[in-house]
Amino acid sequence: MEISENALIKGIKRFETPSGKIIRGIGDDGAVVDVEEGSYVFVQDAMTEHIHFEFSFMDGYDIGRKALYINISDILAMGALPLYFMVTIGIPAKMSYKTIQRIYRGMRRAAREFNVSLLGGDTTEAKTDFFIDVSMVGKVVTKYYLGRNRAEKGDLIGVTGVLGESAYGLSLLREGRTGKGLMRFINRYRAPKPPYAVWKELVKHDITTSMMDVSDGLIIDLEKMMTESKKGARVNLDEIPMPRLLRKERKESLALAGGEDYQFLFTFLPDRRETITTITKMGFPISIIGEVVTGKGVRLFEKGKEKKVIQKGYEHFGGTV
Amino acid sequence: MEISENALIKGIKRFETPSGKIIRGIGDDGAVVDVEEGSYVFVQDAMTEHIHFEFSFMDGYDIGRKALYINISDILAMGALPLYFMVTIGIPAKMSYKTIQRIYRGMRRAAREFNVSLLGGDTTEAKTDFFIDVSMVGKVVTKYYLGRNRAEKGDLIGVTGVLGESAYGLSLLREGRTGKGLMRFINRYRAPKPPYAVWKELVKHDITTSMMDVSDGLIIDLEKMMTESKKGARVNLDEIPMPRLLRKERKESLALAGGEDYQFLFTFLPDRRETITTITKMGFPISIIGEVVTGKGVRLFEKGKEKKVIQKGYEHFGGTV
Repeated sequence: MEISENALIKGIKRFETPSGKIIRGIGDDGAVVDVEEGSYVFVQDAMTEHIHFEFSFMDGYDIGRKALYINISDILAMGALPLYFMVTIGIPAKMSYKTIQRIYRGMRRAAREFNVSLLGGDTTEAKTDFFIDVSMVGKVVTKYYLGRNRAEKGDLIGVTGVLGESAYGLSLLREGRTGKGLMRFINRYRAPKPPYAVWKELVKHDITTSMMDVSDGLIIDLEKMMTESKKGARVNLDEIPMPRLLRKERKESLALAGGEDYQFLFTFLPDRRETITTITKMGFPISIIGEVVTGKGVRLFEKGKEKKVIQKGYEHFGGTV
Repeated sequence: MEISENALIKGIKRFETPSGKIIRGIGDDGAVVDVEEGSYVFVQDAMTEHIHFEFSFMDGYDIGRKALYINISDILAMGALPLYFMVTIGIPAKMSYKTIQRIYRGMRRAAREFNVSLLGGDTTEAKTDFFIDVSMVGKVVTKYYLGRNRAEKGDLIGVTGVLGESAYGLSLLREGRTGKGLMRFINRYRAPKPPYAVWKELVKHDITTSMMDVSDGLIIDLEKMMTESKKGARVNLDEIPMPRLLRKERKESLALAGGEDYQFLFTFLPDRRETITTITKMGFPISIIGEVVTGKGVRLFEKGKEKKVIQKGYEHFGGTV
């Protein structure tokens, strides 16, 4: 990079958002914040070059914005609203200051959308590959935090929005296809903004017994929820919401196992089905895809017949994909 | 790595420390913690392979422990006690599970020493080089947080312990010298445990006007403090505490600019000089190295004569070293 660390930090300081609760921001050994009593959620999630993204598919702005979205998604999934974040970026020598500014601009965009403030972090050299690592804190706004561990037998399983769009977007980028009708998939891959409006409705109606975001893929994530809840799940493949194009191109697996959807997966009591219908009619799509049973793991059904689970989703380090 | 992400996370879960305030730990989208009202300090500091360390000089245990120490040091420097931390590790394919366990064991050691609890974080693949990025939160225990911005004209400048040990230790490793009398320098480089006992005395006596830790090097860090305080400093080179060996080998610059000392640099009112003497007599070494003046920057004096500042300390991205 062509500027000094001091100059870089001065540049980053411009991305701070003033807040009466931040007593001391960037420029010291740490940030100081006035915190009120309550339950708080802490998350930390990174993106590394060549593993999570390529600069040929996303620019700095997209990367900064997405690094925030994936952390905001985790905070929301716990029933909390995001408040503050810190970020470490590992900067290889080849990276330009302009790219770094784009990364911070992308973060600022997402930070403004969700009213979360930058507290500081670290800027460091990286020998070869760029990485961005965001930590975030939010305050629980539900009666009891939402988690993966309270699904009960008989609960129905719901998911917001449409699955597979992001993974399909990535596959289009890899194939070099960027037609007009395809940009919405690519955009969902680049900027998976958490579906805040439907989240608000779910929280307002206090409807979920368990909740998580779909990041690694529907099946693997549902399996994680069932493990934490010590239950099993039956999923009806016909009900999984996906773009028509995926069924047409026989790429249904992207909706089941593609990952990076950043939609919300949740369980709820069957007698709340009507509330779900009401929320859906308000224009916030929710699909009821199955139910919680005793036992463990996830079983898939299509037109009443059981199907074998082949692809589960993304697991690092030689996992199941 | 030879195990799956799921198995890895299960392994990491063993490093959790149970706490009544942690309502939900590893295993969900985020950790949930009961927080009481107050001022809190947030820090985040990373170490990257080939930039901050080499595996040939430090093993996983050292790296995990040091990653925690450098964050604990920042928390203490703000007048706070550390409470919780999260950690992201970027794991290249070549790294063994055993090394990762050593990293978490090193973190656990430091966490126990300072009573700080692991909340979670991220384990991710890294294409080429390993990195570790720790975020930490602590609670301010001083009347008003300590920072870099309240040094006043006439204040004296103090520093704890001895400077240059860590940088000298690194130089020994680079030169392949590991004699018996030299191990304490190498150990200080590998495990720069923050000097908690002297910190406690400083805080107990409410003595500091400004405080920071020495991480990049005495001169560059003092310059940062003066910039934030809008003042200047005069430093007496004869008073800078360093190992006799450094003067003998004409490596005094390591004490001025070597960095990674993780001692505390602070300013205090001249009428508190006696308290400093008392603390020193208790066995907690403190050196009074200069005074705060109007103006800006750091001026060096030796036997009353001004010396030119040549080396300031470590700055990333083509800085001044």
